Amino acid sequence: MNSPRLFRRKLPAQGSSPGTFETEPSVIKPVLHTMAFNATELTERDVETLTEAKSLASDNHRLWIDVQGQPTTGLLEEAGTIFNLHALAVADVANIGQRPKIEDYGEYLFCVVRMATRDGAGFRWEQVSIFIAKQFVISFQERPGDCFDAVRHRLRTGRKLIREGNGDYLGAMLIDAIVDGYFPVLEEFGERLEELENRVLRHPTQAVLTEVYHAKRELMNFRRSVWPMRDTLNQFLRDGHVILKKSTVPYVRDTVDHLMQVVDVVETFRELAASFIDVYLSSVSHRTNEVMRVLTIFASIFIPLTFVAGVYGMNFEAIPELKWKHGYLYFWGIVVSMLLAMLYLFLRLGWLRKTDNLDDGK
Amino acid sequence: MNSPRLFRRKLPAQGSSPGTFETEPSVIKPVLHTMAFNATELTERDVETLTEAKSLASDNHRLWIDVQGQPTTGLLEEAGTIFNLHALAVADVANIGQRPKIEDYGEYLFCVVRMATRDGAGFRWEQVSIFIAKQFVISFQERPGDCFDAVRHRLRTGRKLIREGNGDYLGAMLIDAIVDGYFPVLEEFGERLEELENRVLRHPTQAVLTEVYHAKRELMNFRRSVWPMRDTLNQFLRDGHVILKKSTVPYVRDTVDHLMQVVDVVETFRELAASFIDVYLSSVSHRTNEVMRVLTIFASIFIPLTFVAGVYGMNFEAIPELKWKHGYLYFWGIVVSMLLAMLYLFLRLGWLRKTDNLDDGK
Amino acid sequence: MNSPRLFRRKLPAQGSSPGTFETEPSVIKPVLHTMAFNATELTERDVETLTEAKSLASDNHRLWIDVQGQPTTGLLEEAGTIFNLHALAVADVANIGQRPKIEDYGEYLFCVVRMATRDGAGFRWEQVSIFIAKQFVISFQERPGDCFDAVRHRLRTGRKLIREGNGDYLGAMLIDAIVDGYFPVLEEFGERLEELENRVLRHPTQAVLTEVYHAKRELMNFRRSVWPMRDTLNQFLRDGHVILKKSTVPYVRDTVDHLMQVVDVVETFRELAASFIDVYLSSVSHRTNEVMRVLTIFASIFIPLTFVAGVYGMNFEAIPELKWKHGYLYFWGIVVSMLLAMLYLFLRLGWLRKTDNLDDGK
Amino acid sequence: MNSPRLFRRKLPAQGSSPGTFETEPSVIKPVLHTMAFNATELTERDVETLTEAKSLASDNHRLWIDVQGQPTTGLLEEAGTIFNLHALAVADVANIGQRPKIEDYGEYLFCVVRMATRDGAGFRWEQVSIFIAKQFVISFQERPGDCFDAVRHRLRTGRKLIREGNGDYLGAMLIDAIVDGYFPVLEEFGERLEELENRVLRHPTQAVLTEVYHAKRELMNFRRSVWPMRDTLNQFLRDGHVILKKSTVPYVRDTVDHLMQVVDVVETFRELAASFIDVYLSSVSHRTNEVMRVLTIFASIFIPLTFVAGVYGMNFEAIPELKWKHGYLYFWGIVVSMLLAMLYLFLRLGWLRKTDNLDDGK
Amino acid sequence: MNSPRLFRRKLPAQGSSPGTFETEPSVIKPVLHTMAFNATELTERDVETLTEAKSLASDNHRLWIDVQGQPTTGLLEEAGTIFNLHALAVADVANIGQRPKIEDYGEYLFCVVRMATRDGAGFRWEQVSIFIAKQFVISFQERPGDCFDAVRHRLRTGRKLIREGNGDYLGAMLIDAIVDGYFPVLEEFGERLEELENRVLRHPTQAVLTEVYHAKRELMNFRRSVWPMRDTLNQFLRDGHVILKKSTVPYVRDTVDHLMQVVDVVETFRELAASFIDVYLSSVSHRTNEVMRVLTIFASIFIPLTFVAGVYGMNFEAIPELKWKHGYLYFWGIVVSMLLAMLYLFLRLGWLRKTDNLDDGK
Repeated sequence: MNSPRLFRRKLPAQGSSPGTFETEPSVIKPVLHTMAFNATELTERDVETLTEAKSLASDNHRLWIDVQGQPTTGLLEEAGTIFNLHALAVADVANIGQRPKIEDYGEYLFCVVRMATRDGAGFRWEQVSIFIAKQFVISFQERPGDCFDAVRHRLRTGRKLIREGNGDYLGAMLIDAIVDGYFPVLEEFGERLEELENRVLRHPTQAVLTEVYHAKRELMNFRRSVWPMRDTLNQFLRDGHVILKKSTVPYVRDTVDHLMQVVDVVETFRELAASFIDVYLSSVSHRTNEVMRVLTIFASIFIPLTFVAGVYGMNFEAIPELKWKHGYLYFWGIVVSMLLAMLYLFLRLGWLRKTDNLDDGK
Repeated sequence: MNSPRLFRRKLPAQGSSPGTFETEPSVIKPVLHTMAFNATELTERDVETLTEAKSLASDNHRLWIDVQGQPTTGLLEEAGTIFNLHALAVADVANIGQRPKIEDYGEYLFCVVRMATRDGAGFRWEQVSIFIAKQFVISFQERPGDCFDAVRHRLRTGRKLIREGNGDYLGAMLIDAIVDGYFPVLEEFGERLEELENRVLRHPTQAVLTEVYHAKRELMNFRRSVWPMRDTLNQFLRDGHVILKKSTVPYVRDTVDHLMQVVDVVETFRELAASFIDVYLSSVSHRTNEVMRVLTIFASIFIPLTFVAGVYGMNFEAIPELKWKHGYLYFWGIVVSMLLAMLYLFLRLGWLRKTDNLDDGK
Repeated sequence: MNSPRLFRRKLPAQGSSPGTFETEPSVIKPVLHTMAFNATELTERDVETLTEAKSLASDNHRLWIDVQGQPTTGLLEEAGTIFNLHALAVADVANIGQRPKIEDYGEYLFCVVRMATRDGAGFRWEQVSIFIAKQFVISFQERPGDCFDAVRHRLRTGRKLIREGNGDYLGAMLIDAIVDGYFPVLEEFGERLEELENRVLRHPTQAVLTEVYHAKRELMNFRRSVWPMRDTLNQFLRDGHVILKKSTVPYVRDTVDHLMQVVDVVETFRELAASFIDVYLSSVSHRTNEVMRVLTIFASIFIPLTFVAGVYGMNFEAIPELKWKHGYLYFWGIVVSMLLAMLYLFLRLGWLRKTDNLDDGK
Repeated sequence: MNSPRLFRRKLPAQGSSPGTFETEPSVIKPVLHTMAFNATELTERDVETLTEAKSLASDNHRLWIDVQGQPTTGLLEEAGTIFNLHALAVADVANIGQRPKIEDYGEYLFCVVRMATRDGAGFRWEQVSIFIAKQFVISFQERPGDCFDAVRHRLRTGRKLIREGNGDYLGAMLIDAIVDGYFPVLEEFGERLEELENRVLRHPTQAVLTEVYHAKRELMNFRRSVWPMRDTLNQFLRDGHVILKKSTVPYVRDTVDHLMQVVDVVETFRELAASFIDVYLSSVSHRTNEVMRVLTIFASIFIPLTFVAGVYGMNFEAIPELKWKHGYLYFWGIVVSMLLAMLYLFLRLGWLRKTDNLDDGK
Repeated sequence: MNSPRLFRRKLPAQGSSPGTFETEPSVIKPVLHTMAFNATELTERDVETLTEAKSLASDNHRLWIDVQGQPTTGLLEEAGTIFNLHALAVADVANIGQRPKIEDYGEYLFCVVRMATRDGAGFRWEQVSIFIAKQFVISFQERPGDCFDAVRHRLRTGRKLIREGNGDYLGAMLIDAIVDGYFPVLEEFGERLEELENRVLRHPTQAVLTEVYHAKRELMNFRRSVWPMRDTLNQFLRDGHVILKKSTVPYVRDTVDHLMQVVDVVETFRELAASFIDVYLSSVSHRTNEVMRVLTIFASIFIPLTFVAGVYGMNFEAIPELKWKHGYLYFWGIVVSMLLAMLYLFLRLGWLRKTDNLDDGK
């Protein structure tokens, strides 16, 4: 079981000026998937530079540039210049591992959210940074592969709301798509926890404990992604913003609502995982008790009997019982009486009741 | 013991436009139980379409349409058109598994609450979505069977308050009925916990642990239903709303009050269930201690004695004691002295005190 | 040990109109202890109806009606009519098990508080409902027997403040008397916890665990009575009210202050009771360790020795040692060496140190 | 180990009028240490009555009366009359065991704080009640002996700030002195916890557990003294007060700051003490595991061997092995093979690794 | 493993006037690293007195004085006089161990933060006190060695923002550098916890428990450093300040953001460390269970068999079996039957399943 790193943050050289970033020379050039649209027209193209992307849109178009893959330094500086973005925000795009947040830079909003995308059997978190202005939306993803396909589909099929809406509506849709992407993760967690629950209650082995612990740790990570996002979106909704149109508000509220639900479920899952450890411990203690009981019954019955047999195995010259006619019978008489005495004791102690554990362990 | 699923949410295709819903082709057509009333008249009928339902009410009537069973896509679209409901709210009716909430759409309120209805031996949760406007109330239930019978009775018997009130009063009564429906669930939980308490303290078996865990899990679910509802109702009361008449406020406050009490009790129950696990663990540990004590007393007394017997069972040619006249008596002398020494030791260790557990375990 | 029920609430038929109540036909008629007073006069009488009670007071009198015992339906309806009380508030008087609260009905306040009265060896909680208006105070107790005697005494002896004050001052005094009544309960709990602490640390038996658990549960109940009261009183003090005179404020503040202290102490007690369970578990584990150590020392010394004795008890034809002249001495030589080796091992493991437990267990 | 009482409160007769107090006839008359001062003059004297104390100060003097020891009823009534103090506040001076608080009575402030003074090896808490007005400060201590010496010294040596300041500055200095008095208590707790930490990790005996528990309980008490004080001081700073001069504010802020630090440290200590119990339990469990391992190794090796020896000690007439020429050697062959088999098993189970515990326990 | 002291605070004599400080006569004179700069010029010099430092800057220069090492009393008094700093703030510089805070003294801000600097293999915390005014910044460090090198570098290389900014920007940069300095500490903690996680799950020895405990304790210390800082910075951002220019706000916000992330990670780490102790306990209990099982299997099989062998080793004159022709075979028949019976029992109890622990322990 390979856990993700506990703490990962790409940092510029310590103490360097805020707004500084370093980009790793990446083998794969990022793709700039660009869509320029208004109510009637849609131009969609993969371009190489932001200048080229911007040229696709005339004044009455809205522009969505989706940067897929780690942006180069050049690209980021270009973004800062052409779209007039603050250096601190641009740096946060490069320095991945940021806390989810929404920052208000007057003409535009800068959002950092964490997206969960399917990765083989599990899920992978990546940072998505989104600049939302009236006329454009620029999104940066760490890697190709996202939850935006349905949004693209709606743009292409010319749905009225999204094609006529401004950047605020498109941006809200992107965040909504990311939040909706949490639900399959929750579902998978739900199934995993149900299976663990079963095993904790029935066969509490060391392997189960390890898995419970790993689930707990991943949930801690999940939580760290959604809690700050919930707070920041709630605050954003409360304060409003110049580019946020009134008609978009119910959609943002809907997203917050989903996020609240995600938070609720994550908290419940964390609490469940925590109680698994308690139940595990109780369960193991109970089993130890059962084991001890079996040992004690066997030992308490046979150790005294062995002593009695030992007595009559002694080689003293004059042990009267040995000479008795029914000596051997007398010996078994002692054995049976002791046995009955012990059984009575254990019955009184309630140790001979059939415990549920015996059935469980079958 | 069959637990409900940990996470259940009917979701539209991921990333699809908010306000989208998919309905399952249901074999059972939903019933539209409609009541149109004013202070003097009441028309009550089961209808097939919302248009038909609406036609039952003239201008000075109030209308309550209670949709029992999963609504079809056609019905929901009709609702959106005829009553001018927002697509997001209508979608939440279809996409069950929503978080309890009250949303303000200007002319009407949209409430999602969770109703507990009796289902055989236990209880079942279902989502109830309610649109509350001045002239109409539309409620959607997942299944037939609800807690609204008393409300219907009051409408039929022409109680003044409800027959003369607007939609806000009727809506408040529906939510009040749902909240009142939580109390029998609490009562059942109370009895179940009392029984578990008894068993945890007296006979802590594995089966008890499993049941405690299941109770805890169901309480977590219960809590997830009532906490958000409390918050949302409180906020609603604080902010007020255009359709909420001043005379209805005490009734909503009364409902909030009951809800607070439900939350209090659920929290207390959760704390109780949590302490059951602690008590279980302590109890099992204590019993293991008792078992160990019995084993240790038997083993510590008889293992040394067996050694002594073993010594005189050896076949050495010259063991002087074996030749002694009173050798056998001398042997028993040793045995009795050792026995007394051990008893003195155990007395000093306080191990021979009769423990309460012996009585308990009877 | 007989615990109070976990959840008790007298409920009207589910879904019935809010403001509905059912009263049980009670054998004992409630007593209406009435005091009508102004600065110079005091009339005190037990009456049968509220009309009669009201007639005792002229315009410049204040009236305190203390209803002792479960009120009949007639009495409650009379109260609603004569004193113009809201149906919801009147229903809360009958439907006992309410959450402590203060509700503002304009002309009067409606308070629900929980009173602790001595009941044999323990304490009993009952709901006290108080209507506080400028000219009258009506209090409803579940049973005769309360903490109001001192208040009555002050009225009778003509103390200036209470005789000249309005209903707000009298009401504040009643609540203050109820809050003061919590302190003896706390004191008793304190003594009980001190005794339990002693036993948990010295003789952790199963019975102690059961008692700790019961104390914890009662504290949870206590807490559920005082927390909502603290919140509601604090809010009341913050918001003020038309009938609350400025001169009464310090007295309410004083009561809140006492309540805060009660809450502090209850929380501390709960934390203590919780740590008792931890200490119990640790203590039992420690004792099991001690028991195991004794067993292990005895078994590890004598089982190998018994084996050696067994060897020389074998009937092989040619066991050379048996023929040795000093064979028996040689055997004891082996025994002593093994004994010394084991003692050295146990010394190194630190198992022969005298543990504190040995003294404790005496 | 003698713990302080869990709950102590001197209460007037239950239900008596608020503002009532009873004083115990005290053998030791309280001392009224009085200092009357302005920028140029200082009169310091021990007086018997407050009237006498007041006469020491003319109009342009400030007066500090420090009442050391339990005040008599007469003294308290005199205080109420001469300085025009509210009966509720005066009663709180007599009814010790109050919650720390600051109350605003218009012309003066009434503060209750808890002072920790050294008492032999430990510390003792006592209630200090302070009335702070523009022209006078009256402080009541339960017992002689306080942390005010430095304040007195500053007054005597004529420090400008304190001699020219009003009552608000002097009052702030007294509270500051009390808060500074918490630091030595913290330091002692720190040392005690460090020692306990050491013992919990190395030699977890029952005595350590008891001490940890006692430390935890005292910290709970400490916390109950400082938390309400922090809240009340913070609120006081936020709301301001007519007698609080702007120049005094930084000094109060400084005190709050120290108090916040005390609260931080107390919380950390409580968390530490709580984890000690967890570590203790883990440690004891680990040791039990070690003990069991030793027992199991010895028992599992020698019990089967003893059986084999028993077999050849049987008296059957025809046991072929007994007649074998190398029968005895053959027996030892079995013994050695079994021994090797067991050692291999234990090696595979990892039970023969030298555990850290062996070194620890030396 | 040498832990830092639990509580350390350099305190002036108890009860001494606030604003008092004592400095220890230090062997090493503190270095006053001074930088005076404006957009075009930069003077950098190590000076001896603050007067000298101040003389380096003319009116249109900004001045940064970085005092490295414990300041002497003279230096602090000089600071108070020349830069007109409040005595309380100056005292807090000397009395190290302060709680992180930002205090508003009108013309300047006084910040106390805690800096983590690398110290051999670990990290060391020290108090940094910073006075931030429009024209000057004075920082006091306990020891030479800090995280400010990059800030100095930016000043030297003439970066526009910092050279043209006022004291507020420079101060924000210093705090930012300190916060950035927390990330390497987090990274190291992350690695340490990952290693501990591995060991807790695989080889839960006493040494691991001790290390987990120490990590937990250090995280408690870390937390005590960052929590108050987060609160104080957030409040500062909310309230604003006269010297805080609008253009600096995004930089402070960026720092708060990083701090929030640090707090998130520290909280996650604390939770992890806490669950390690739970997992440890569960793991040890499980292993004890495994050990007990082995013991019980061996003892329960061989103790009864030894009894049987003992029986036929007795010397009764008439034990019929001993005379039987196939007596010895009959004995082995009994042995094998008992063995099979026991194996069947253990199989049913599920004790012979190969547990994961056996592999783990290899």
